[in-house]
Amino acid sequence: MVRLTRRYRFAASHRLHSNHLSERENREMYGKCNYPYGHGHDYVLEVAVRGPRDAESGLAVDQRILDRLVSEEVLGPLDHKNLNLDVPAFQDVVPTAENLAAEVRRRLGDRWREAFAGPWPVLESIRIFETKRNIVELSNTL
Amino acid sequence: MVRLTRRYRFAASHRLHSNHLSERENREMYGKCNYPYGHGHDYVLEVAVRGPRDAESGLAVDQRILDRLVSEEVLGPLDHKNLNLDVPAFQDVVPTAENLAAEVRRRLGDRWREAFAGPWPVLESIRIFETKRNIVELSNTL
Amino acid sequence: MVRLTRRYRFAASHRLHSNHLSERENREMYGKCNYPYGHGHDYVLEVAVRGPRDAESGLAVDQRILDRLVSEEVLGPLDHKNLNLDVPAFQDVVPTAENLAAEVRRRLGDRWREAFAGPWPVLESIRIFETKRNIVELSNTL
Amino acid sequence: MVRLTRRYRFAASHRLHSNHLSERENREMYGKCNYPYGHGHDYVLEVAVRGPRDAESGLAVDQRILDRLVSEEVLGPLDHKNLNLDVPAFQDVVPTAENLAAEVRRRLGDRWREAFAGPWPVLESIRIFETKRNIVELSNTL
Amino acid sequence: MVRLTRRYRFAASHRLHSNHLSERENREMYGKCNYPYGHGHDYVLEVAVRGPRDAESGLAVDQRILDRLVSEEVLGPLDHKNLNLDVPAFQDVVPTAENLAAEVRRRLGDRWREAFAGPWPVLESIRIFETKRNIVELSNTL
Amino acid sequence: MVRLTRRYRFAASHRLHSNHLSERENREMYGKCNYPYGHGHDYVLEVAVRGPRDAESGLAVDQRILDRLVSEEVLGPLDHKNLNLDVPAFQDVVPTAENLAAEVRRRLGDRWREAFAGPWPVLESIRIFETKRNIVELSNTL
Repeated sequence: MVRLTRRYRFAASHRLHSNHLSERENREMYGKCNYPYGHGHDYVLEVAVRGPRDAESGLAVDQRILDRLVSEEVLGPLDHKNLNLDVPAFQDVVPTAENLAAEVRRRLGDRWREAFAGPWPVLESIRIFETKRNIVELSNTL
Repeated sequence: MVRLTRRYRFAASHRLHSNHLSERENREMYGKCNYPYGHGHDYVLEVAVRGPRDAESGLAVDQRILDRLVSEEVLGPLDHKNLNLDVPAFQDVVPTAENLAAEVRRRLGDRWREAFAGPWPVLESIRIFETKRNIVELSNTL
Repeated sequence: MVRLTRRYRFAASHRLHSNHLSERENREMYGKCNYPYGHGHDYVLEVAVRGPRDAESGLAVDQRILDRLVSEEVLGPLDHKNLNLDVPAFQDVVPTAENLAAEVRRRLGDRWREAFAGPWPVLESIRIFETKRNIVELSNTL
Repeated sequence: MVRLTRRYRFAASHRLHSNHLSERENREMYGKCNYPYGHGHDYVLEVAVRGPRDAESGLAVDQRILDRLVSEEVLGPLDHKNLNLDVPAFQDVVPTAENLAAEVRRRLGDRWREAFAGPWPVLESIRIFETKRNIVELSNTL
Repeated sequence: MVRLTRRYRFAASHRLHSNHLSERENREMYGKCNYPYGHGHDYVLEVAVRGPRDAESGLAVDQRILDRLVSEEVLGPLDHKNLNLDVPAFQDVVPTAENLAAEVRRRLGDRWREAFAGPWPVLESIRIFETKRNIVELSNTL
Repeated sequence: MVRLTRRYRFAASHRLHSNHLSERENREMYGKCNYPYGHGHDYVLEVAVRGPRDAESGLAVDQRILDRLVSEEVLGPLDHKNLNLDVPAFQDVVPTAENLAAEVRRRLGDRWREAFAGPWPVLESIRIFETKRNIVELSNTL
């Protein structure tokens, strides 16, 4: 059984602001990330999958399928976009790194079984590096 | 004579769109960077200065002065900001990495002599890493 | 449930030398790290915590609290310090990366519950990168 | 209990080509990695071990033993080599990152108990970074 | 006047072996790089150009043209290739990093004027990172 | 003509403190770097040389000679050492990055002609990365 991790990049902008909080609470909660016109990051996405090595090909996952899925479901909709304004999921949800990781997992998970047509590989974890210093992970084993 | 380079980071969003071009020309010229709601980067700024080593202190530049100047003139006004909407210089100027480097050099240059109170150090070059793959430099020696 | 990792840096010096070993045994055990006047590193610290995403804020941890705790308990006492001479815990304990990770975990753990005032987040693991090639981890799941 | 990870590098060339597949299937399966004369990478190897901290030395693993074992069993036989032509294990096995990780684990595992002469440390996982974007892990806990 | 640097990656294999030297001289000169079946690297290429900022677009170089030229002349012919066997220029020339940089400069230079259709930008320097530790540069100003 | 840069690493400790300054002036000038027991860094050294490509070997510098010279003159005397206490040059000279670069250049320069036995390569510049954010360069062209 092998864990394979692939790393992708996308640039996006966002603003952290919750409709459930007052202006003052927003500023206190999110600090500079609440500035009114937003800011941006070069996000790094790591997708980790688990599966058995195929005896013939020596591969644990068909990377062409994984790359196409990530491209269609994540990079296309998010790269060079404004998360708050371009992505429907963030109309009412604050685009924190935590929520972004959840949205990426949902997008990949919804088409996973159809894309790989079999029990393997399993989507194990999503990691978002918002910056080099702030990393969020969603995982089956948490 | 020594060259000293200090590296700083700031996160900002921008949109590349020129008022002198048609919608179609903008899309062709800037590609994904022209998407309507903007995107963002974790910019890296390198400021390179030149000066003699001080015989007593062994330093070529008083880093407290340099850091304060960069903080007041660059990081404060640009970090977690939208370059198009928050920075007056980019009201009519497209915030490309080239123009951003020029703006940073102008901001530091305007207060340089007053801040360092003497002929040294000389501000030699400004480098902006928009991403790891796209780097712009303005230098006295170009 | 989300795992959030934050990364910090500090520069410190140390010497690996055990009072329980002879001079010769110390040299054999620690090699260059036993040189008499010590040496230093730019340590990287990763603190990983686990908690549920808050529905309103979209955050799994209040980063202001975590950053303040790390600053007060780790960066203040260790940054630009000599681990052997400045840190009481290493008077009789060799400041290996393993022992340093344990000391950092103890320092954060002692004030964790008081600082976060609730069951979440849980302090999950401490990772110390002594160099890029030598990494030590203490974790609840080990 | 501590997890210690050490990182090593080696440069090697390989070609992905399976004798069980037709020319066309090979090209489809492996893409550019199937080009006839091979290509190469600067591989990064991470070896993670687990063990208790020794009370006297403060170390969880004798790094001299680990480094010697990795040098003799991995770096010597693989560094600056052609994986297909120089390494017997890849005569009939495709040198994918997955199979390379398995071969490294086998090589270290075969001599592990003899080298460390005791129950600790345990060899926990092998990670191969084929490139920065493609990472394979074999682990006891998978 | 602006210097713009763009960074590209390609994986290739090579063997350092000169027909003008004996077997023994080859081994002494090139060490492990002379092993008979070759090895490989993840090469990084930096192309630095110089030009004036365009007043309207704010750009110093049309990156679409540069990226296409590099893709056609360098990445296509070299990525995932064996430099000795796949690249005609290295039939009788040893594919050292120095010679590789010269070949890349020649390839870009031959089509530069035709591609950019004007005096700007000027191709200023080529840098090849063979590994992180070994970097070769060819420059107009050397 | 080629510029070749090689990168080396060493870990050392130091304290910035000038005998020509009062205690208070030292604290103001050097800040945390003046703490009494010192601290340390993982220094990166880049040595850049210039020379013609040899037509036969395709090399601009005999790396075995350069590596041996750096090992004997820099890494041996400085790695895992305390710059203030172990290095005679810093008995009365503050081991700032600026002075460290000058000391490294002096050490390499003193034996350069003897080591390379010919007019090429020329030692062009020394760069010291004290941290990722603070870089000092001494160069023939400054």
